[in-house]
Amino acid sequence: MDLAKLFSRLKDGEPRALARALTLVENRAPETRELLSRVFSEHQDATIVGITGPPGVGKSTLTDGLAKLARARGNKVAVLAIDPTSPFTGGALLGDRARMDAVAHDPEVFVRSMATRGHVGGLSGAAFEALVLLEAAGKDFILVETVGAGQDEVEVAAAVDVTVVVLAPGLGDQLQASKAGLMEIASLVVVNKADRVGADLLAAEVHAHTDGKAVFETVALEGKGLEPLFDAIESSRGQRRLVEAWLRNVVREMLYERISDSKWKNAVRGIEERRVTPYEAADALLKELE
Amino acid sequence: MDLAKLFSRLKDGEPRALARALTLVENRAPETRELLSRVFSEHQDATIVGITGPPGVGKSTLTDGLAKLARARGNKVAVLAIDPTSPFTGGALLGDRARMDAVAHDPEVFVRSMATRGHVGGLSGAAFEALVLLEAAGKDFILVETVGAGQDEVEVAAAVDVTVVVLAPGLGDQLQASKAGLMEIASLVVVNKADRVGADLLAAEVHAHTDGKAVFETVALEGKGLEPLFDAIESSRGQRRLVEAWLRNVVREMLYERISDSKWKNAVRGIEERRVTPYEAADALLKELE
Repeated sequence: MDLAKLFSRLKDGEPRALARALTLVENRAPETRELLSRVFSEHQDATIVGITGPPGVGKSTLTDGLAKLARARGNKVAVLAIDPTSPFTGGALLGDRARMDAVAHDPEVFVRSMATRGHVGGLSGAAFEALVLLEAAGKDFILVETVGAGQDEVEVAAAVDVTVVVLAPGLGDQLQASKAGLMEIASLVVVNKADRVGADLLAAEVHAHTDGKAVFETVALEGKGLEPLFDAIESSRGQRRLVEAWLRNVVREMLYERISDSKWKNAVRGIEERRVTPYEAADALLKELE
Repeated sequence: MDLAKLFSRLKDGEPRALARALTLVENRAPETRELLSRVFSEHQDATIVGITGPPGVGKSTLTDGLAKLARARGNKVAVLAIDPTSPFTGGALLGDRARMDAVAHDPEVFVRSMATRGHVGGLSGAAFEALVLLEAAGKDFILVETVGAGQDEVEVAAAVDVTVVVLAPGLGDQLQASKAGLMEIASLVVVNKADRVGADLLAAEVHAHTDGKAVFETVALEGKGLEPLFDAIESSRGQRRLVEAWLRNVVREMLYERISDSKWKNAVRGIEERRVTPYEAADALLKELE
């Protein structure tokens, strides 16, 4: 593969080059680092927005609505959908095609699904590096959609500029409970499906329980309420942490690369046979790095 | 704190000592390592069962049912509920008390909720070390309940002896979609709420789509179908990976301890100012470890 050519096409915003580069990143291909070292110096200044929340609240519809709005306002838009996925096959659950349809066939909105995989390290470098690639390809409004309330969401929230947590009325106790964990990573909270019973109450509850965090009511399916939300996203851009998240992942990946499989196995055996504690074994592994 | 005393009470299976030790582990208290180095040589051979699946399928009820059954069969039982939680307060969403009630006030079943927190590294050492403590305290049947389909579940599945994935009929497209990612970490699959319409169909679908993986139908609320599931759990115990998961976490934690905050900050600044690539920065951080 000619990386210089790929890089140059990527910079020109060619969708096929971008798709190919994202595949390299997702597969942790050896070329990835050279490509990213080039791309890195092209780093731009997109608004990166995390969209998260429990299943069934309408995150995808809201994401698509915001993507359309961003496009209408003259942005170059990308959607990165992080799917919970197989740790073994690594295949994304909702294919790019399915998502593409949802974004109203607008060829100007670049959409990509990405598997979180079973890597040590959650989103592992892949998602962060995908964001860097999307920026380098000239996208200036990037939506990252994640599902749930786990570690992946926390990592994304720590890396993006604005985190939007989406809720909806009437999802039952178990889902309501998971709000608490999500609330604290939220820059903005959305109560979607706001035409349903209980929406105002839910919005008032969230507002009260978060010391007055801004809550937006939307009906994403009908495009209602998206404009004020979009304005709030643009004005609430916080400090970017993407570089730090990326660096931590690279450090971890490099560390694991430098410890051979046989060393891991020997260390595990030593612990299992009670010859060393995990702390002694870890210390020895780190000492041997040189 | 007198660690020798705590350790001795823990070995005797005293619930208060165990609770205290788990708090130390959860808070990553400095004493943790000394305690675990002692506990470590007491490592026993419990059956550790992961219970996971999307929200609303009845995981907690099933976990409680299996706990009761394990107890009835003469096991010393513990339940560790990993809650999605605030990355900042680290508080568990469902308190131990709420869970305690659900396990039918049986004082012989030790129940603990644990927050995943916002640590780098998902479950971070805490959950793995909690399992080691529970074993050291003489528990021989340990249920670990997690929610969702993200990295946390993958990490738990990689560490426990048997992973049970719980589904239920009628949860809609979005939840059904998340099945795919969960299926591959499953040792056994349960279709709970099997008295509802669509249960047999769902079980048949799962069976067909997983190349004939064993699927058990249960109505956990009525205790139906738990006995054959329990037997299958006992006979499908796979290879334990707990030590490896624990070691990887310790290595990561030790690595991060050895890189000072100011070094991280300098490296991030260097990247942001385009003086170094993330790969060069990571390489320098690892080289400086000595």
